[in-house]
This record gives sequence, structure tokens and C-alpha cells, in this order.
Amino acid sequence: MGDRLRVVVWNEFQHEQESDCVRAVYPNGIHNAIAEGLRELDEGLDVGTATLQEPEHGLSVERLAETDVLLWWGHKAHEQVSDALVDAVQRRALEGMGLIVLHSGHYSKIFKRLMGTSCSLTWREAGERERLWVCNPGHPIAAGIETFIELENEEMYGEPFGVPTPDEQVFISWFEGGEVFRSGNCYTRGNGKIFYFRPGHESYPTYYDTSIKRVLANAVRWAAPQGRWVDSCPNVTESRERIGD
Amino acid sequence: MGDRLRVVVWNEFQHEQESDCVRAVYPNGIHNAIAEGLRELDEGLDVGTATLQEPEHGLSVERLAETDVLLWWGHKAHEQVSDALVDAVQRRALEGMGLIVLHSGHYSKIFKRLMGTSCSLTWREAGERERLWVCNPGHPIAAGIETFIELENEEMYGEPFGVPTPDEQVFISWFEGGEVFRSGNCYTRGNGKIFYFRPGHESYPTYYDTSIKRVLANAVRWAAPQGRWVDSCPNVTESRERIGD
Amino acid sequence: MGDRLRVVVWNEFQHEQESDCVRAVYPNGIHNAIAEGLRELDEGLDVGTATLQEPEHGLSVERLAETDVLLWWGHKAHEQVSDALVDAVQRRALEGMGLIVLHSGHYSKIFKRLMGTSCSLTWREAGERERLWVCNPGHPIAAGIETFIELENEEMYGEPFGVPTPDEQVFISWFEGGEVFRSGNCYTRGNGKIFYFRPGHESYPTYYDTSIKRVLANAVRWAAPQGRWVDSCPNVTESRERIGD
Amino acid sequence: MGDRLRVVVWNEFQHEQESDCVRAVYPNGIHNAIAEGLRELDEGLDVGTATLQEPEHGLSVERLAETDVLLWWGHKAHEQVSDALVDAVQRRALEGMGLIVLHSGHYSKIFKRLMGTSCSLTWREAGERERLWVCNPGHPIAAGIETFIELENEEMYGEPFGVPTPDEQVFISWFEGGEVFRSGNCYTRGNGKIFYFRPGHESYPTYYDTSIKRVLANAVRWAAPQGRWVDSCPNVTESRERIGD
Repeated sequence: MGDRLRVVVWNEFQHEQESDCVRAVYPNGIHNAIAEGLRELDEGLDVGTATLQEPEHGLSVERLAETDVLLWWGHKAHEQVSDALVDAVQRRALEGMGLIVLHSGHYSKIFKRLMGTSCSLTWREAGERERLWVCNPGHPIAAGIETFIELENEEMYGEPFGVPTPDEQVFISWFEGGEVFRSGNCYTRGNGKIFYFRPGHESYPTYYDTSIKRVLANAVRWAAPQGRWVDSCPNVTESRERIGD
Repeated sequence: MGDRLRVVVWNEFQHEQESDCVRAVYPNGIHNAIAEGLRELDEGLDVGTATLQEPEHGLSVERLAETDVLLWWGHKAHEQVSDALVDAVQRRALEGMGLIVLHSGHYSKIFKRLMGTSCSLTWREAGERERLWVCNPGHPIAAGIETFIELENEEMYGEPFGVPTPDEQVFISWFEGGEVFRSGNCYTRGNGKIFYFRPGHESYPTYYDTSIKRVLANAVRWAAPQGRWVDSCPNVTESRERIGD
Repeated sequence: MGDRLRVVVWNEFQHEQESDCVRAVYPNGIHNAIAEGLRELDEGLDVGTATLQEPEHGLSVERLAETDVLLWWGHKAHEQVSDALVDAVQRRALEGMGLIVLHSGHYSKIFKRLMGTSCSLTWREAGERERLWVCNPGHPIAAGIETFIELENEEMYGEPFGVPTPDEQVFISWFEGGEVFRSGNCYTRGNGKIFYFRPGHESYPTYYDTSIKRVLANAVRWAAPQGRWVDSCPNVTESRERIGD
Repeated sequence: MGDRLRVVVWNEFQHEQESDCVRAVYPNGIHNAIAEGLRELDEGLDVGTATLQEPEHGLSVERLAETDVLLWWGHKAHEQVSDALVDAVQRRALEGMGLIVLHSGHYSKIFKRLMGTSCSLTWREAGERERLWVCNPGHPIAAGIETFIELENEEMYGEPFGVPTPDEQVFISWFEGGEVFRSGNCYTRGNGKIFYFRPGHESYPTYYDTSIKRVLANAVRWAAPQGRWVDSCPNVTESRERIGD
């Protein structure tokens, strides 16, 4: 059982409660749709969910300490996320917890915190075709994907994307309306692996797409902790070599 | 005059001599079209040319030693370039000479040598529309470009592009037929700056395009040497600290 | 005059006012020592200073807008720097302003903000010998330095240093007591260049050292803006290609 | 058995046959010492060896195709390695085979091929103390190492090390004589993971050191293939979107 991973899917869970259209697509919330996809594709995952409305947004320090990989979906309520939680998630990510940031989470406090940049982009909501091209056909996050993923209707995100150069580029998106976007980006920060994955607008059934579910399940395994870096800033008064010769 | 740069545009110069169609587009060769564009846009550049057919392919060790930035266009004659020249160009690039690799030069010996990877890609020749999006609107190579460059007819290059992750991504291309490509890639190798720039198929008047000329002139300035690393592998028998205490 | 750069040296300016020992080393403050070194080595720089105690910490939005390169020295008063100023400096850095973070500035709000990581390290104050080795002898920041810089007495900083992998490693430090440290680190964030430079403890005359002055003057030129990225997140309702075919 | 890895330790195997001193340290060759260490620490590894003297240097195309991770020790016989083998190892590495390059292998044909740079360094053979500091205490390659590894006698390698900036820096070495060196460097090239690990001079019993054995066993697991990228450069004549509207 050493390989089992403890996964939490966090969702701000607002659109689904406020909009009939969104609720029609995700009646149990985006978090549950994602969680079910993960459980379906990987029986080695213990997948739970958490939402903004729960006490401590569903992510107490204790729960975070027992989370191996966290997925994050947020859009209109970024500012309602407490800074204390952002601090706690950042600390765990730097220690080694995997973090997968989804779609409009590009503007979440935690993603901006970890990137250090604007994380801005251009956008258009026109239900257009998106094609995500694989940039490294052997990458574990792209396992099972044949050269590209096609989504008939998605929101468009376009360059410039205000992020540091990714360590690895797994996907780049083509959009029907004429734009491109770095849509599958790997980063290491501290000892933690971070994956940003672009698709997933609340109005479209993206998270039910077989290939999207596959990528998320792959990304969870990729982001799994492989060690732990407990941060400190020690004053090492004893030197290993003699000083002052 | 300390800012003047010595630039050489190298071209294998074969298509233009073998094909009426290509000669119609580039009657004096691609190298001269590029060189004229550089001279036109930047009076501080001393621009010469070199071709495969000249003695030592036009790039003697002496000439390379006096070259600040080298542009490279090759396609069907990669194998005819001598390994000695590849060695010499690599050495100069690592010392600090700028190198700008163009279009089908992705498969040149020198680019493969410096990248260490396959440098492969997918391709289609259908004269389709290409749109190169700027990923960093403040990057010096993109100076003067408004969000994107549009070329009505170009050969398509698509992902996966078998290169190391670029240090900086300046452009990504959208293609009419549905593909994307990392089309403006910055690398540092040794002390040299390398820029790969995708457009420039021999059948199309790409190098007469104002924006393309601007990018090349910008790239030459960006790639200019800022110092020199003379490689050696010295045996430093004297230590600075006492050994054996 | 197009090449003149507007430089501001910021200092929290506390040790010098509170400690006789530090004041003896830097009677006019660390900021003025650094500023004088820059003026001495590069007449093309217009160098001003700013301190924590001034209104808006000496860095109004207007002044920042006219600053090309900002140097930052802070240690014990990081928490006194207003978040509004950190926001403003980050915004300008992402636009393209150069930022040089010095010594204990590794824990400044602005450096942690831009790195997204802990920025922690190990340390010892024992006045030991530091030797900063050049990792790229042709790098413009190392111009004029012969293989290494030696400082007879410095505070020790040791690995692990909790930062993202630098884009370029210019210096690595050796310490008499047995540690090593990545002490000259280049980053690009947004369109801005960031250089972290380790030496400069308040108790030692490091900023009077000829080589250290040379590195700082070099770094200012290296970090100079080469363009400007004005961030926005535009909704581009018009598409360039027809949607819905 | 899905987790079993097929490992080959390659050694030029010359010093051990030519020098009594070296043979006294490694009577069965460096390759067998390394192989035994791997077997001892990880029962899930199937570890074989290969040497320069064997037919096809012990690495036929068939054997390479069945190798998950290859370790490479070479020093004085780099030029005797056939270019055909270098081509084959590069191809497999880009596909996804892990490659661990040891000590003087920095100048091997395969490492220079994959890096694209000079791979030069400074060096001194004085049997001095080396201390390898961990730069990321949670990195899987450093698992089980407490802050540093100390080796009483090693050859010194010093900066500048002519390699591309590593994707991740796992170790940096301190030397008694006063130098530093990036001694544990991670790269991704194509789909393959590459780890360069500095220690291992033929005159010293480095490969019997418990911590060194631990790092090599960790590195093998880290470098294990996670997918396969079969390179091609396809002409995709059919476009997914209509061209010419």
C-alpha cells in the first residue's frame, strides 16, 4: 500500500451553486467530477474533496499534512481564500506536496504566490475548439494521449502568459479563433512539483473528457512527493573546517 | 564605433540555384535577402555573407574569429557541411559568438550539435497561414512587434519539437491547419546566445516581410557577444588553501 | 544619452544607526557606499539612494516608474517594508526594471515574492574567508574578474538555498569553514532581470572591495531594461479566425 | 515485477588493467564495484556490466533496447568509443533511457554529445577532502543523505564547468584546496533523464562509500524511464483544419 496516494481536489464551488447552466454540467460540483475521474482511472488513489465554504476552506493544517497531491480549481472567489491557507499550501508544496493548478486557477493566490509573476493572459469566451498538442510524447503526464487532445468547446486563453519559463512544456494549445497558449506546464519549487493545466471552463463538460481525466490521473502520479524538505534557516555555529588559519 | 557588430549570414544556397520557383523569390539567394534586411534596419551592423560553395564554406577560422553574430540557413545540404566547420562554429559559439538558426536549420549539424537532441518535428508544405504570437511583449527580440506576426503562406512545423526546454520562449506559432510550434527559442550554451527562429521556407517571400526583418535585426543585437570564454581544462596543481591539515 | 541608466540603491539603514561597529565601517550607510562605487566605475549611471525611513520608504510609484535598476539591501527590518511597496516593486520588475538583491535581502519580502520559495539557507557569523568562483568566465556580470573573488572576512551562507534553479549561475562561493553557496544567481521574471548577489554583511568592508564594486556595476548594466511589458489580461472578444465552421 | 529495472554499468576498464595501484582498489574493475553496490542497496535492480573491450563495447543495439538505466565510467579511452555506439546511446537516452555519467565521464563522447558544450573544468590530483552539499534535502537522489557527503581523498574538479545550466542542482562540492564544483546535476533531454555525478576517481575507494552507493542507487530509480518517445519527423500532409478559407 506504500504506493497509495492521498489526493484532495479543492474547488471554490460557486458557479455551480449560482448558475443553472453550470449546475446542469456539474450537478455535484467540479470537484466531485474531477474526483470521480481520478478514482475511476487509478484505484491507488484515495481521493477526497474540499471547498471554500467548509471550515478552514476544507484544508486544515492537519489535512494538508496528510495530503500528497492537491488539485486547485478557483475562478471568481480567489480573494476569499484566506492568506493563512495560502501560506500553508505554499509551505506544503515547498516541502514536497504535489500541486495541480487548473484553468482559471492561473489567477489564484497560491499560483501567483508560487510563480512570483503576474500570471496574466488574454482570454475569450466563445465556445471554440481547442487542441492541446503533446510536446514530449514520452512524458508521464501525456501517457496514453495520441499526439493531441481535442475539445470542441472551450474558453480561449492566449499568450502572453505571465509565468516563469516552465521546466518542461508538456502541452501547447491551438485555438480555433487563432491563438496559442502554453497549456501544460511543469515547475519544481522547493521540493514540490507543480503542474498547471489549462482546460476546464465551468460551462463545458471538459472534466468528463476521457483524455482530460487521463492527464489529471497521470499528473497526480507525476506530482507525487518523492521526499520531504523541512525548511529551516539554521545558524550552524560549529564549522566543519578550522577557521582562521 | 565600439557598438558596431560584425555579422555573417550563411546559406547553403542550393534551392535558389536549382529551382526556378525559388530563384524567382530570392534571385540573389536567401543570404543576400537577409543581409539586405539587416543593413536596412540597423546601420550599426557590418553584414557579410557566406555560402556552402565557397572555400571552407566561406567560414575560415580567421573569419569566424572576427564574427560577432552568425545566421545559418540550411536545408537539403546539411550533410555537405564539413565536421571541421561544425567544430569551429561550436567553439566560437561557446566562447560567446551569437548564433541565429533559421527554419530548416533545425536539422543542421551545428544546431543538433549544440542542442544534443533530435531536433525533429512534424511538417507539412501547404502554403498555410502562420501566426507567431509574442510570449514576452517586452523581450528585445520582439521589440516593435504588435502581439503577433502573420504570414499568409508558410510551411508548417508542428510539435513535438525535439529540443531542450528553451531558456526563454519569445514566439509560439499557430498554423491554419491546426498545429502549434515553439518558433522563437532562446538558449545560452557556454557563453554564447543562440536563437532559433522558425519561419523562412525557400518558396515564400518571408525574409522580405517587415516584421521578420525586424525580428532578425533585434535578434542580432540580442545575441551580440558580451564577453569571451576561452575554454581550457587547466590542471591547477597549486591549491589556494593548504591541503592535508 | 540614451544609454544612461537611472539607478536607485535602497537600504533599510538600521544597523548603521544602531551599531557603532557597523557605523565605523559604513559611516554614511551601506547605500551610499554602494552608490559611490557605482558612480566611480560607470559614469553613465545616475545613481540615487532611498531608505526605509523616508516617506514611502523613498520609493514612490513615480520614482519607481523612472528607475531602470534597483538595488536592495535589507536585513532586520524586512517586515517594516509596506506591502504596497512590495507590490509596486514587483510590478515594475515584471515590466522590465532590473532588480539586484544583496546579501540578507534573500529574506526580503520582494525577493520571496518574486521567487515564490522559502529563500532560506544556513548561516554562521565567524568572519571567515569566502571565495566566489566564476562559473561562466565570459558572463558580462563577471567581466574583469579573474577566476574568483576572495574576501578575507564574511558571514557564511550555506546550501540548501531555497530558491528556484537559477537561469544562469555566475558565482558559487567556497567558505573557509567548509560550506558552499550559490552566490551569484540570474533570473528572468516577466520581462525583468533579477540578480541575487550574496556578499555584503554589514560588519565587513565588502562594498569597498574593488571586485565587488566591479560586479555590482556590471550587474546594473546586465539588468538594464531592454523593453517594457505592460501587464493586462485583455478580453479579446474578436477572433482573428472564424469560429464555428 | 513491473518495477524491476534493467541496469547496465559501463566501464572503459583500462586503469584497473594497467595500474597496480588502481587494481589494488578495484580488483574486479570499477564497473563491478558499482554493480555490487547497486545490487546490495536495491533488490529490484537487475544489474549487468559492459566494458570497452567487449564486442560492440558490450552495448549492442539489442542490449541497449533492453536497458532502462545506463551508468558510464570513462577517462583515458574516450576516443576509442565508436561513434556508432554514441549515436545509439544518444538515441536511447532521448527515447527515455536513464543515463548516469560518472566523474571523468564529463569528457566522454556521449556526455559532450548530449550537453552540446565543452564540458571542461579545472582539476587537481592531490587526494584532498571533498564535501558534497545537498542543495535540495527532499530530492529523491539525496534520500538518506544527511546534509552532505564527505570523502577524505578525491581528485578535485573546479568551476567553471562547461555545461548547460542544470535543470536541478542536487549537489555542490567543496574542496579542501579551495575550489567548488557543481557535482550533482540533473538534465532532461528528449524524454530521458540524465544525472552527472562528480566523485569517483580511479585511485580512491569512492565507490565503496556507503553514501556514494546510496546516491547511485537513488539516481538509478530517479532516472528510470517513465515513457518512450520514438523519434520521427513525420510529413503530415493531411491537416486537421481546412486550409485556404
